[in-house]
Formats: sequence, structure tokens, C-alpha cells
Amino acid sequence: MTVPTLSINLATIRKQWGLREAVEACARHGIRAIDPWRDQVAAYGVQDSARVIKDHGMQVTGYCRGGMFPALDQARRDAAIEDNRRAIDEATALGADCLVLVVGGLPEGSRDIGGARQMVADGLSAILPHARACKLPLAIEPLHPMYAADRSCINTLAQALDLADAFGEGVGVAIDVYHVWWDPDLAQQIARAGAHKQILAYHICDWLVPTKDLLLDRGMMGDGVINLKQIGAMITQARYTGPHEVEIFSNDWWAKPGDEVLATCLERFRQVI
Amino acid sequence: MTVPTLSINLATIRKQWGLREAVEACARHGIRAIDPWRDQVAAYGVQDSARVIKDHGMQVTGYCRGGMFPALDQARRDAAIEDNRRAIDEATALGADCLVLVVGGLPEGSRDIGGARQMVADGLSAILPHARACKLPLAIEPLHPMYAADRSCINTLAQALDLADAFGEGVGVAIDVYHVWWDPDLAQQIARAGAHKQILAYHICDWLVPTKDLLLDRGMMGDGVINLKQIGAMITQARYTGPHEVEIFSNDWWAKPGDEVLATCLERFRQVI
Repeated sequence: MTVPTLSINLATIRKQWGLREAVEACARHGIRAIDPWRDQVAAYGVQDSARVIKDHGMQVTGYCRGGMFPALDQARRDAAIEDNRRAIDEATALGADCLVLVVGGLPEGSRDIGGARQMVADGLSAILPHARACKLPLAIEPLHPMYAADRSCINTLAQALDLADAFGEGVGVAIDVYHVWWDPDLAQQIARAGAHKQILAYHICDWLVPTKDLLLDRGMMGDGVINLKQIGAMITQARYTGPHEVEIFSNDWWAKPGDEVLATCLERFRQVI
Repeated sequence: MTVPTLSINLATIRKQWGLREAVEACARHGIRAIDPWRDQVAAYGVQDSARVIKDHGMQVTGYCRGGMFPALDQARRDAAIEDNRRAIDEATALGADCLVLVVGGLPEGSRDIGGARQMVADGLSAILPHARACKLPLAIEPLHPMYAADRSCINTLAQALDLADAFGEGVGVAIDVYHVWWDPDLAQQIARAGAHKQILAYHICDWLVPTKDLLLDRGMMGDGVINLKQIGAMITQARYTGPHEVEIFSNDWWAKPGDEVLATCLERFRQVI
């Protein structure tokens, strides 16, 4: 069996470094794959980003992020669709394996989560032809239910897969342990995703006890309660062979030197795979 | 159709009043149903609590709470079971409609959520004969997935109903909108619960955006994004006819005068049913 490799989602070191420095730091640590964010790429420039990534031989395991489709007025929904098309272009320029979609939550002032879910399906439908033309897979990332209101109304892997199934070719899922570890249906849904080759990305971190902040208190692998070995085995059994991508939003880790963060990611990754 | 009535979970006013004062205050506001917590009852005494509740003609829509079954060593699991039996006795003495079960999360130091779920099933199995002998229904309350690690490893209504189905007579569910509002499967699972008469309690509050604290930032009905009218209609269609119980853990509402909290509960309840 191939030993999985590590990818670093650049949000993990966003406070320490810009895109170029982050890529150089990953290379210095022997890391060969990254997932950059749009603001990081915009700050350095798309073409310059593509060049520094290529120069360092980096695989781009995803591009964060598209999505955020729901809005109460049509003009804002259209603007979101246009913005997603630009994200597809950028991801294509970077040679990314997929565009990660955080689909968006309830529109401001709305209590209609069913309606928001329909807007997500409509938005996906609108951007999919362009993504297919660019041969760029779209990865729906189900987000933890605590983000249902403000970030994503797609909250379980089953729900994300139902949506991916409805669209077929060119749409899959990004599975992040932080969002799905609690799901009693997890093993079955990972197997289902594997059977249809729908796993486009696998993200790792940990769930801390206590969790002090809904957004910015993710843990380093091994510091929390997620059974990463067990979920990793499910992912491997589902024949996902890509890198395991570390994505940690954490005020604590952002306050540490970037080299310490990367060294810790590598060390913990070896312990948990 | 009968208009639903209001019950007050006494956690909502726990910082303002002890049990006797809380019951008197509810009566003063014309509220005819409550759900007390064990610590509140213990502080006033079980028999005195039963008397003041009876004197004011209060329905007891639930007793909070049993559960917390998982532990790594057998002695602690046995102690939890004994404690649950005492909770059953207290609930019976109070004439409660059910004992609400917050089943417990991962044992300290454990990453085995599957194992924790088995411990919950074992604990339920151990206390059920006593509950049946007392004719006291047990209400499994699925808790929001953000509490999977530290409070409850039962995190969806489907999962709670699967467990209730496995035990049959004397086991149902408590449905709290805060925990389940995001669930894409909610309508179907409420209908399922209704078809088998498994809805023992219905709790209301709201989900605030932003939510500042994982535990103590629940909203008053109408202040957040939960579609209470829609979920209430599902509950009514499922032939649940009991009171709608307000349960709000909130530093903000605990800081207000209790009479203001109760008046607001009543006012908002009339708006959202």
C-alpha cells in the first residue's frame, strides 16, 4: 500500500506567511502539496502564484474556495456565480486538483434553509459547465452543522453525496474530519463516496475538548478526540490515494512560528496515519 | 386544532430563582407547565418540590436529566446507572411526563465514539426495567453534533429513533429545535417519530447568528434563524399535542429579571406557533 503524503492547506499558516513564503517553507520541510486560498493567491498574483508553485514542484490538492451561493436577491446570486467562474479560472491556472466549495448558509434575514439548499443546487448547476470545460472537478465540502446558518447549509456527507450524485461527472466531495467525525453514518458514506470515486480531497485536523471558539479553535492532529487512524483507514479503504491535507484554523497555531507549525504537522501526521 | 401551551424548562431562569420561586413565577404568568433540573429539585428537596409543583397545578413536561452513561471503567458506568435510577425515582415523585436523557459523550481520554454509543445502549438497557416499573418514559434527546465529544454521542433524530426503536416500549425522544434545526432529514424523522408515538417532549429556543459560545448563547424564539413555525407545524402534524417547552441556556437572558424573561417567552411563543 502506498503511504499517504501530506498536503498543507495554506490557511494553516496564513498569519505567518504570504503565498510565496508559505510555498518555500513547505518545500523546505519536504512537503510537496499545498492548498492555497483565493486571498493569498490574489495578494501575490495568479500568474506569479502559478509560477512559484510550479517552480517548487508542488501538487495543488485543492483551491479554497468557491461556493457561497445563497442570497435573497437575484443580482447577488448572479454575482456569486460570476465569482465562482473566476475561481474556476484561477484554480485551472494553478493546476489545482479541484475547487473546494463551501456552499454558503442562510441568506441574511432568511430562515429558509430548504430555500438556501435549492440556491446551492442552482448555483452549482450554473457553474458546472464552465468547470467541466476547464476539466476542474468541484468538491462540495459538507460543513459541521454548527455552520449551517452562516457558512454552509450542506452539513452531512450523505447530503453532499446526494448533491454530487444529482450532478454526476465533475462533482465530488471534500471530506474534512472536523466536519464529519461525529456522524453515525460516516463509515457507510465514505464507502459510498469511494465506490463512486467521489472523494476529491481529504482534510485532517482535530476536535479539541473544550472547543473555545466555533471557528478558530481547531486542533492539531493528536490533540483532540477525532479517531484519525480509523477515519484514515476508511478513506484508504475507499481507495482515496491523494495527499492528506492539514487544514487548521486556530488562533493558537497562528501565534506560533510557521516552521514550528509545519514540523508539528509532519510529526503528528506520521503518528496518526 | 388545540392551541399548544407553553412549558418553561427551569434552566431558562436558573440564575434568577430557585425551584419554589420559579414555580411561583410561572404560575404568576399563567404558565401551567415546567421542566425542572435535578440540582434545582435537590436544593429544595424532592418532596417539597413535588408539593409546590402540585399546589400550583403544574404539569411536569420532563425532568432534566438522566444519561451521561459512558465511562472508561465499569465502576463509573455502574455509578451512572445507579444515579439514573435515582433520577427515575425523583421524576416519578414529581409526576414528570418523562425523564430527559442527555446520554453523554466520549469518556475522558477516549476517541472511540462507536464504543461510547454502545455504552449508551448498555446504560439504557440497564435502567429501562426500573423506568418501566415506574411507568416513566425515557426521552432520548439527540444533541447538536457540536456536543458529540463532551455531552452526547447521539447527534441526530434518526440515530435517537433507531435507539428508541431497538428498546421499544417506554423509550422515545425529546426533540429540541436547537439541536436538530439544521438536519436535512428533519421533516422525515419527525414524521417517523410521530407515526410511532415517540415524541415525548418538544423544546424550543433559537439559533443566534453569530453564536458566541457553544453552550451558553442560545437565543430567544424569534431572535435567530430557526424556522419555528415550520418545525412546529411538523410537530403538530406528527400529532404531538403536549406543551412546547422553552429551554434557553444564555448568559444574556440569565442576566435579565426573571419576570422579563417569562413575559418575553410568552410573547414570542404566541408569535411563533
